[in-house]
Parts: sequence; C-alpha cells; structure tokens
Amino acid sequence: MQLYNLKAAPNPRRVRIFLAEKAIAVPLVEIDLAKGENRTPEFLAKNPLGLLPVLELDDGAVIAESVAICRYFEEQQPTPPLFGTTPLERARIEMWNRRAELEVMLPVIDHFVHTHAFWQGRRLQSAEVGELARDTALKRMAWLDAELAEREFLAGDRYSMADITLQCALLLGKNTGAPIPESMPNLTRWFAVVTARPTARA
Amino acid sequence: MQLYNLKAAPNPRRVRIFLAEKAIAVPLVEIDLAKGENRTPEFLAKNPLGLLPVLELDDGAVIAESVAICRYFEEQQPTPPLFGTTPLERARIEMWNRRAELEVMLPVIDHFVHTHAFWQGRRLQSAEVGELARDTALKRMAWLDAELAEREFLAGDRYSMADITLQCALLLGKNTGAPIPESMPNLTRWFAVVTARPTARA
Repeated sequence: MQLYNLKAAPNPRRVRIFLAEKAIAVPLVEIDLAKGENRTPEFLAKNPLGLLPVLELDDGAVIAESVAICRYFEEQQPTPPLFGTTPLERARIEMWNRRAELEVMLPVIDHFVHTHAFWQGRRLQSAEVGELARDTALKRMAWLDAELAEREFLAGDRYSMADITLQCALLLGKNTGAPIPESMPNLTRWFAVVTARPTARA
Repeated sequence: MQLYNLKAAPNPRRVRIFLAEKAIAVPLVEIDLAKGENRTPEFLAKNPLGLLPVLELDDGAVIAESVAICRYFEEQQPTPPLFGTTPLERARIEMWNRRAELEVMLPVIDHFVHTHAFWQGRRLQSAEVGELARDTALKRMAWLDAELAEREFLAGDRYSMADITLQCALLLGKNTGAPIPESMPNLTRWFAVVTARPTARA
C-alpha cells in the first residue's frame, strides 16, 4: 500500500493528519507537480484528474479523493473514531465536514487561485472574484467563530474529520492572505488547539 | 420527522431521489426562497446558511447537507445499498460521488450563477468565469463519457449515490445552458437510463 502525496497541498494534508491520528503508517510517494509527475500516463491511469492524494492498495486498486481515502481507513481501523460512532453523530460530522470543505476550503482556494502570483498564466484570474471569495471565507469564519463559542470542536466535544478539514483550509488561508481575523477569539482558540496536536505536522 | 425542501434545486432533489429509491416516505415542507422563508429566524436556527435541504428529526435534532442526510437514512435502512456494501466499494462510491459534486455539479452551478439573468443583481457575475466553468464542466463530461464506456453506472454495475449526484448536476446543466453534448454517447445513454427510473421524478 502507498499514498501518492503532495506535501504542501491541503487535501493530502487531510489524509496525513487522519492517518497520524490513527497511528497508521503508510509509505508516501511524493509527486512533483513542477516536473509534471501528476501528468504522466502512469499517474493519470491512477487518477485521470491528476489530483492528489491517491491511495494505491497492494492489489493495485486505487482510491482517489481525500475523504474517500479517510473513510476507507476509518473502516479498517475504527479507533479512534474520526467520523463518529452513532448514525446521528456520523451525520453531524459529515455535515460539518462538508461545510468546512464547501463553505471555507473552496472559497479559500478560490481566493488563492484568483489572486496569487503563482497562478498567473496557469489559470484565468479575476481579482474581483478572488476578493469575493475572500469575503465569503471571512463571513463563514465569523459564523464558525460563533459556533465554537458553544463547543470545543467543530462537530461536538471530540476532534473529528470536520476539524481536520477546517484546520487544513485555514492553514492554507493563513499562508495565502486569508488568515483568521484577530476579532474571532473562538476560532483563534480552536485553531491553536488543533494545530498544537502532534498530528498537525504530519 | 420532516424534510425542508426546495423543489427546483439540485441538492434537495438528491435527497428526494435517494428516499424514493429506498421507498422511505418523509413529509416535505416547501420553503419559498422568493418570500425569504429560508432567511427567517426560525429557519436560520435550523441551518444558519439558509440552505436546503434540512432534515428535522422528531426530537428536534436537525441535519443539513444533502449527503449527510442521505447517509443518515442509509444507516437507518441499508437496503437497497446506495453507498456500497464493502469498505472498498464504499470508498469508490464516495470517490465518484465527490467527483460528480466537485467536478461537475460545482462548475455547472458556477456557470449558472455567473451567466444567468436570474442572478443579476443577486450575485457578482463574471461572464468570463461563467464560460470557464462551462468549459470545465464539458471537459469533465467528456471524461465521464469515456469512463461510462466501460461500465453501466458511475461507480460500478449498480446504481448508487454517485449516480444520483451526477444526474442532478446534469439536469441542472440541461436547464441552464450546459447540456450533455450530442457527441457523448455513453454519458447520453447513462443519463437516459437514470432519468427513466421512476425515482427520478421524486
């Protein structure tokens, strides 16, 4: 078994943190985008989208998409539970994981892609769309700041997949000009807590 | 138990089709966006994002987010399985469901929001971003057309959650100027098959 990895990107980071929380060791194969290693025929046979991460099982079966990979490992090793233990808890964690991804990670990525020099010439950029995406991300952060006044973690009183997604989204925001504003004490407290976990450096 | 619904939107449709496939009857409460019914304090207490669908359980607990709601019902009534029956099958269905949502539904929605008269004055519109989103959606459709040459349904030989997501995405595309091109016979065949299921009109 091996995990095709891209060190700096938010989605592979989600899987690495998830595996570290479960103390599951999977050999990493680093893919170099600058060298086009995600566009070789061999890699595109594993994931036609050229995206990371990709998990390859010993029999050659491949699973792409960070959350699909994490859920596969959750079933292989349920402890500690990161997707919940009852139907309602699992639904709530999935709800908050989707909100973290769709409402925070995607606008943070949009802001990055539309405004950062790295993407000039690689993607169509609209400064206006980029600023709008940042506004959306900041509004969602303010909402989550209020939610986190009432509980320790995003989906309840236990660290879960939803926290992993949100911390990876906000780490990208921090590094690309959309950090958590100082005016949000609960989200700031939560971010300090989750990024202080040893697994955050996985 | 009741499901807050928005008849014409793709995400509530995913849940309605899912419930129909399982023959689960849940009373629907229609929310009228034009009257601002998704922005009342009562509704925002259920989902602060003002989005549909929302499932309300008999004890008042709420679950938002279409896929979270569907997974909740999958656990309550596993038959017929729409999220898979083995860890690998479940991972593959999640992978394809995510691809259908992130790679097709989101660009189709982006194209709609950035180019359609309905959104004038409601959202920032960029015709250039809208056309780029349509290009992305069409590229993804071409990819899926090739994938569907090899199997009957998106994630394998059985209808699944991934098909539900894709059919709702492509129905929106059909209605908003991003239909399946005639040059894609496999995707066209698949769309005819899934939309001919009685549940497609749920």
